[in-house]
Amino acid sequence: MPNHNYVIVGGVAGGMSAAARLRRLDEAATIVVLEQGPAVSFASCGLPYFVGGEIAAQSDLLVQTPESLRAALNIDVRLNSRVTALDASGHTVSVTGPEGQYTLAYDQLILSPGTVAARPPISGLDHPSVHTLRTVADAVALRQFAVAPDTPRRAVVIGAGFIGLEAAEGLRLAGVDVTLLEVAPHVLPPLEQEMAFVVAKELRRLGIDVHEAVTITGIADDGGRAVVSLGDAQAFTADLVLLSAGTVPASAPFATGGVTCDERGAIIVDAQGRTNLGDVWAIGDAVVSQDAVTGARRPVPLAGPAQRAGRLVADAIAGHFPARALPHPLGTAIVRVGALTAAMTGANRAGLKAAGLPFTTMHLHPLNHAEYFPGAKTISLMVHIDPVTGAILGAQAVGEAGVDKRIDVLATAMRAGLKAPDLIELDLCYSPPYGSAKDPVSMVGYLADNLVSGVVKLWQPDDLDWALHEALILDVRSASEFATGHLPGALNIPHTELRGRLDDVKAAAAGRPVAVMCQSGVRSYIAHRVLVSAGLISSTLSGGMRTLRDWLGAQADNLLTRE
Amino acid sequence: MPNHNYVIVGGVAGGMSAAARLRRLDEAATIVVLEQGPAVSFASCGLPYFVGGEIAAQSDLLVQTPESLRAALNIDVRLNSRVTALDASGHTVSVTGPEGQYTLAYDQLILSPGTVAARPPISGLDHPSVHTLRTVADAVALRQFAVAPDTPRRAVVIGAGFIGLEAAEGLRLAGVDVTLLEVAPHVLPPLEQEMAFVVAKELRRLGIDVHEAVTITGIADDGGRAVVSLGDAQAFTADLVLLSAGTVPASAPFATGGVTCDERGAIIVDAQGRTNLGDVWAIGDAVVSQDAVTGARRPVPLAGPAQRAGRLVADAIAGHFPARALPHPLGTAIVRVGALTAAMTGANRAGLKAAGLPFTTMHLHPLNHAEYFPGAKTISLMVHIDPVTGAILGAQAVGEAGVDKRIDVLATAMRAGLKAPDLIELDLCYSPPYGSAKDPVSMVGYLADNLVSGVVKLWQPDDLDWALHEALILDVRSASEFATGHLPGALNIPHTELRGRLDDVKAAAAGRPVAVMCQSGVRSYIAHRVLVSAGLISSTLSGGMRTLRDWLGAQADNLLTRE
Repeated sequence: MPNHNYVIVGGVAGGMSAAARLRRLDEAATIVVLEQGPAVSFASCGLPYFVGGEIAAQSDLLVQTPESLRAALNIDVRLNSRVTALDASGHTVSVTGPEGQYTLAYDQLILSPGTVAARPPISGLDHPSVHTLRTVADAVALRQFAVAPDTPRRAVVIGAGFIGLEAAEGLRLAGVDVTLLEVAPHVLPPLEQEMAFVVAKELRRLGIDVHEAVTITGIADDGGRAVVSLGDAQAFTADLVLLSAGTVPASAPFATGGVTCDERGAIIVDAQGRTNLGDVWAIGDAVVSQDAVTGARRPVPLAGPAQRAGRLVADAIAGHFPARALPHPLGTAIVRVGALTAAMTGANRAGLKAAGLPFTTMHLHPLNHAEYFPGAKTISLMVHIDPVTGAILGAQAVGEAGVDKRIDVLATAMRAGLKAPDLIELDLCYSPPYGSAKDPVSMVGYLADNLVSGVVKLWQPDDLDWALHEALILDVRSASEFATGHLPGALNIPHTELRGRLDDVKAAAAGRPVAVMCQSGVRSYIAHRVLVSAGLISSTLSGGMRTLRDWLGAQADNLLTRE
Repeated sequence: MPNHNYVIVGGVAGGMSAAARLRRLDEAATIVVLEQGPAVSFASCGLPYFVGGEIAAQSDLLVQTPESLRAALNIDVRLNSRVTALDASGHTVSVTGPEGQYTLAYDQLILSPGTVAARPPISGLDHPSVHTLRTVADAVALRQFAVAPDTPRRAVVIGAGFIGLEAAEGLRLAGVDVTLLEVAPHVLPPLEQEMAFVVAKELRRLGIDVHEAVTITGIADDGGRAVVSLGDAQAFTADLVLLSAGTVPASAPFATGGVTCDERGAIIVDAQGRTNLGDVWAIGDAVVSQDAVTGARRPVPLAGPAQRAGRLVADAIAGHFPARALPHPLGTAIVRVGALTAAMTGANRAGLKAAGLPFTTMHLHPLNHAEYFPGAKTISLMVHIDPVTGAILGAQAVGEAGVDKRIDVLATAMRAGLKAPDLIELDLCYSPPYGSAKDPVSMVGYLADNLVSGVVKLWQPDDLDWALHEALILDVRSASEFATGHLPGALNIPHTELRGRLDDVKAAAAGRPVAVMCQSGVRSYIAHRVLVSAGLISSTLSGGMRTLRDWLGAQADNLLTRE
């Protein structure tokens, strides 16, 4: 094997993964990693926890050093080294680094440049109080701000995505007064609204001032402090503004050098990570992926897929075996918010609608483990499936425990092509501290099987107008539950009395379909089967009153009647 | 639809699941459940936690009552009602119950009789101190014993399977002195020895006196106390002996009635749960299953598969759609032992060897979440794969956190037919509190891919004789780690110095293969690649010294050299 010369641009996640794999496959090669920042392979996902103090030592964020990588893997890592130009025909990059400017030749070039913070159209973003949270230095600055003993400490966080939420919680944990602003209709925009409402409630419980669906018009100065103004004339004065409103690919010098990018500047690659230019590959957050469910093409900025792409591109370059194609991402993601965990995989309603994919949604509220074992916690779990084939299209969950496990199992099932009714066949761990004989994921399978086979017909929270105006709403909870809040016009017959009162239901329905509901969807399912058997047209509310309240959010108290 | 008459024998797990599903599919049917015990649908898996006091109220163990099932599902549950005979040609069963003896007719009969405690060939099992833990009454008796204030409280638990371990821990937690006896070579016999050693260590840390590979010769009386004697002349005097040495199917009256059973009395059914007799079905712990990996035929007494079988048999009987075949079980199981969790899915070495299936084993020691996030815990994870196809044959894990999630993901992948290298493609939840960018399961995929593609060659703990006598053992840990204990004759070259000392290795190897090792297998993998590239014949120890120590168990201190 000739001595290859591999150059990698970017020394975090994907870039370092590629470098390490190249070494293991090609001991004789020269491997140079050009990292524009002052640290290699740092714990970028840990930065918000350093701000909050859960990660105490700055050194914990530095997973590797150039010296450790030299010693273990004979990799030449060059920090503070920025690539300013690419000459693909000459197989060189131009570098500006501590040694000055120089040209570096490559046989194979891997681009893992990552992203920079997006700059939304808000005036005053250059105010000195405006920070981002992208580097260890950023985290240190935020931490210093958070723990400074004698300054007024008010922060505004712009953007309630993953980093925005984690940073807001970190600042709050450190004692800062935090206002969190989100332009989208709700926090964590990829979450469905009935999930996001639960997350927003938890943020407020933590003492964070949450504002959703805002328009941010500008940032002005007031004696050194920043004043963030909204379109509705509200304004928030802050000592620190954290901008976390998304990212854009850091692809400019490569685009200039001829690498084909999409309209947002994200690098386009083939199934194995090749750009349009010979011997130039690209991986990580700056690269376009094709969504596994919807086929949408966009960057999916996640650490796991970036590391995997680094390895697979290295396999394609240096492996003596056919390299695996880069998997289409499912977008599996998770975030801790206070005592809650929120996680998701696959597509959400918006993505499914945009792709024109038919779907139906199941909402469940299982416990994380056996009810009779102490400490059981409810999980709010929703799964979108193809109503005909039963294909699993997406899943989301929020709860205090057991959320990550169920989303990981569902993500595994999706990747493997299991249909939702096939989840019945999973043999999952059960003993009382860990699950139930019918695991939440098994319950998804049972319900999906009922839907696909026609044993159950659901109505959804967004069918509420239909239920209120065209159906008889039959609430089968107990009278005392009914009294805590119910839909206007609902007939209350507890499920245990239903068999004896079918004539009452028929009289009240007067030919209309019956929209059954209970608290979580279990009792209404039993009632639904009784009604169907009695010849009534019936459907059962997905997830019951619990889901409906989360769906309605702040509107619930206006709509629901107490008696 | 005519009014069907369904009779179900057994009102726990499978039986109640079948009854409830039948009602949801057939509102007009008569459904009778005959339960020989005094409780229906009780929390049998929760009994050991009641003994230990974690589940405080006896009422928590009673999930349903005949009254609640009558009200919700119109099911006629008859407690204390034992079926004494089956007349399949007459479509009747003979019942002895509170009403006396009577004959009950059925259109379809579902047998879910469960098991009784096995009675191993030990003399004196009829001693009044000998208990089992099968019913709520058993659990209450054990709890009363455990908390009795003024009795001497010494217990011997015979059998260190799942229930035996949980009961031993429960008794210990309540302050009882516990001796745990296991006839097999180690506790939790389905676990591999390197996993079971970790579990035994934890049991001892809890203060339980563990004896493995014992022969139990008899139980004698000593003034009311029981004396349990072993073959080696040891004896343990106890106030209570808990017999948990397996189970046997409670199938006698049905076998007498013509139901075909295997040589151990387990009922044989077809793919949908039919016995050999028309209109007689069987589910649950008394029924033979075919192991999904090895094809071995035996009962798999687990609550999840039993509940599933109840539903699927009901679908086959009453569904207006093709019923799903009963899945071949993977035998996924989990147990909490002190601060540890041990879990497994699929086949173990013994099962694979018995089936003649080729396999290789990977041992990994990943952290449950990002190292830099506080509280990271090591998981000992092992996976058996087919060395050619990469098929996942079995997996086991022990650790303080994150064990259940990884085994569930692997069980899902196995059921879906993913190959181990395909685990690379999983998109699993990652943020620092939950995992790593390379999740432990992803690591399994990467390593499997290396094995199947030939990038890595492993040696196993049971190749130790080969390594000691026919290879150069190269230990690439640091000098200080090496000094804490190493294999006799091993050469120590830290992995960071290896590239400069290849000539030393070649000289020491003198033509022999090089058996590389480090602490957990990561550094030795890098070293292995360096050696292969240098033309040496090399392999790397699966799981490193950490696995080797657990494999050697008590022998480790005899073998390992300190300096």
